Amino acid sequence: IRTTALTADAVALGGYRHYMQKEIFEQPQAIANTVGAIGGGVALGSALFGAAEQWLDQIDRVLILACGTSYHAGMVARYWLEAVAGIPTVVEIASEYRYRDSVPHPATLVVAISQSGETADTLAALEHAHQLGMTKSLAICNVPESALTRTAAATFLTHAGPEIGVASTKAFTTQLVALALLTLTLAKLRGRLTPEAEAAELTRLRHLPVALQAVLAKEAEIAAWAPHFADKAHALFLGRGVHWPIAMEGALKLKEISYIHAEAYPAGELKHGPLALVDALMPVVAVAPNDQLLDKLMSNLEEVRARGGELYVFADQGVSIPQVPHLHAIQLPEHYGLFSPIVHVVPLQLLAYHVALVRGTDVDKPRNLAKSVTVE
Amino acid sequence: IRTTALTADAVALGGYRHYMQKEIFEQPQAIANTVGAIGGGVALGSALFGAAEQWLDQIDRVLILACGTSYHAGMVARYWLEAVAGIPTVVEIASEYRYRDSVPHPATLVVAISQSGETADTLAALEHAHQLGMTKSLAICNVPESALTRTAAATFLTHAGPEIGVASTKAFTTQLVALALLTLTLAKLRGRLTPEAEAAELTRLRHLPVALQAVLAKEAEIAAWAPHFADKAHALFLGRGVHWPIAMEGALKLKEISYIHAEAYPAGELKHGPLALVDALMPVVAVAPNDQLLDKLMSNLEEVRARGGELYVFADQGVSIPQVPHLHAIQLPEHYGLFSPIVHVVPLQLLAYHVALVRGTDVDKPRNLAKSVTVE
Repeated sequence: IRTTALTADAVALGGYRHYMQKEIFEQPQAIANTVGAIGGGVALGSALFGAAEQWLDQIDRVLILACGTSYHAGMVARYWLEAVAGIPTVVEIASEYRYRDSVPHPATLVVAISQSGETADTLAALEHAHQLGMTKSLAICNVPESALTRTAAATFLTHAGPEIGVASTKAFTTQLVALALLTLTLAKLRGRLTPEAEAAELTRLRHLPVALQAVLAKEAEIAAWAPHFADKAHALFLGRGVHWPIAMEGALKLKEISYIHAEAYPAGELKHGPLALVDALMPVVAVAPNDQLLDKLMSNLEEVRARGGELYVFADQGVSIPQVPHLHAIQLPEHYGLFSPIVHVVPLQLLAYHVALVRGTDVDKPRNLAKSVTVE
Repeated sequence: IRTTALTADAVALGGYRHYMQKEIFEQPQAIANTVGAIGGGVALGSALFGAAEQWLDQIDRVLILACGTSYHAGMVARYWLEAVAGIPTVVEIASEYRYRDSVPHPATLVVAISQSGETADTLAALEHAHQLGMTKSLAICNVPESALTRTAAATFLTHAGPEIGVASTKAFTTQLVALALLTLTLAKLRGRLTPEAEAAELTRLRHLPVALQAVLAKEAEIAAWAPHFADKAHALFLGRGVHWPIAMEGALKLKEISYIHAEAYPAGELKHGPLALVDALMPVVAVAPNDQLLDKLMSNLEEVRARGGELYVFADQGVSIPQVPHLHAIQLPEHYGLFSPIVHVVPLQLLAYHVALVRGTDVDKPRNLAKSVTVE
């Protein structure tokens, strides 16, 4: 028997209807706590990653192992690690990695991501990587004394606090913060981050809670969309680049708690199949940050609209949204640069939550699912 | 204007109702032609890959670029290349790769896969890889004088013959044959294939048309399942390991031509979300080869059945299928070893075709889709 530091306060609902809603709204604090754990000032360095300090400068590739929502965090990190730190990165679904013959490399940093640290497949995948000689491993985990933190060579703790809702929210965004810090640290170790850029990105990370508050303030606007989804059996989520995994995470949330069959696609793949599904009964949600892929995305969306699809777009401030039928848009704050995925996932969490409310499902304990998947 | 060698014979329907059906049944011949192009005897060697002969022994990693169905072929090849040839392999959706900052490596073999050789994103992704200094490129293509074959440094032609149906079938299986030959050749170049294993695998490839005939003979049995899908709005496709991309391809076929929202998952991810969707209205199709992952898969399937899901299993001969309610199974020929994915995709093509027939959709020209996606 292990006792935990959970207090009645921490698990009480406060003014919220469900733990999931509470946890969505705890994200600014959870992120502030996670960023705060690194201390003030310009503090990036391998010491942030515990025992990894000894060898973090020796790695030349990254392998990320995870399941479910944590896998989506890993997918975001791949875009970051390759673009910012210049490190080749592979992300694998843990249940796939552990059973296939792969090609190990000793200079690999193995990152295992799990909120609970008890996910059976992720744990077994990490042990598999160790057995293949890849012993430089880092757990990104929300529970200090878990099987994962005991197994990995080093640990970075997210400080999300206890997460009760089965559908992960604040664990995901704090995992992204951990992976952002890892990316920036590796970029710095490899001489790819000027002191000015380091200071600027850290400032941006510390400002994230404020940016998220601005998104959370859109709850009523997002809730107003929920009835349009609640009577549908399907939804399609589109994103491009680093926001493709965010679209995947948005689709997964909707699946998990509303039982609507939502699926995500990188928008460029639309014409290679899913466009056949699009009609008035299949609402399409688009993650549309104000980045260099915006024009491409808007052109993909026009194809959806031309085929009778109903479009729901989450756009950054400054994105010009055409005033046309069947296109609905909610404007988020200004584009958040590198960390835009952390901002853009929040409205998708809120959308899933409010759709589930309208449908009357058991938000915190969706059917068939467990909080931690501790068996294969 | 370019004239082609298409004859009236080649495009005539013969006794088939649709081009798709005809092309599914042409697969034994298409594969025989593609394997046959390498000549008789023990013939594996870099000379099979045209101009790549000059440098194929110098590569130490593989990057595969593709869209849609061709991307699924690339995903299968990743399992093969890492397990058999011991070469680290990355597969990227072309529309994602071309717009992201990735980490190039000069000793990379870049494989671009496209039936038509005119897929805009694949072509642009290949050019992007060239610009990054990765000039050792191989097109796997069904059209000899296409933009892709002109752009790539080397070409391996599939000999599928003209493919008219928008939903790709014989192009996919011949792409897999090309990738199998590439895997075996690279394994041989790297001293990982004994002469005995080489002879055995070549014999197996040459025997594939016979194995496929045995699967095609199951058409009536598969068609009998079609009405159970035709009145559903959803389907879930499950596979593990090298058969996960086959489940993805099966789901894509059903999407494309029947407009049923089918989605594939690696079976180990079931508990991380999609299990919430499972009920009597969501039939679940499982690709269940008689391999080392079978027990794991059967345990995943039991979870589906326990939650009211209706299971449709394609199993190899020798797989013991429990006689329980809500579980339907079709036995295919014996397990086909390394090339099992080529065998297992065929019943999924037939299932999609017959479901579309029952639903009365335009099989060869599904709504919203084009045969070659020649624009972004």
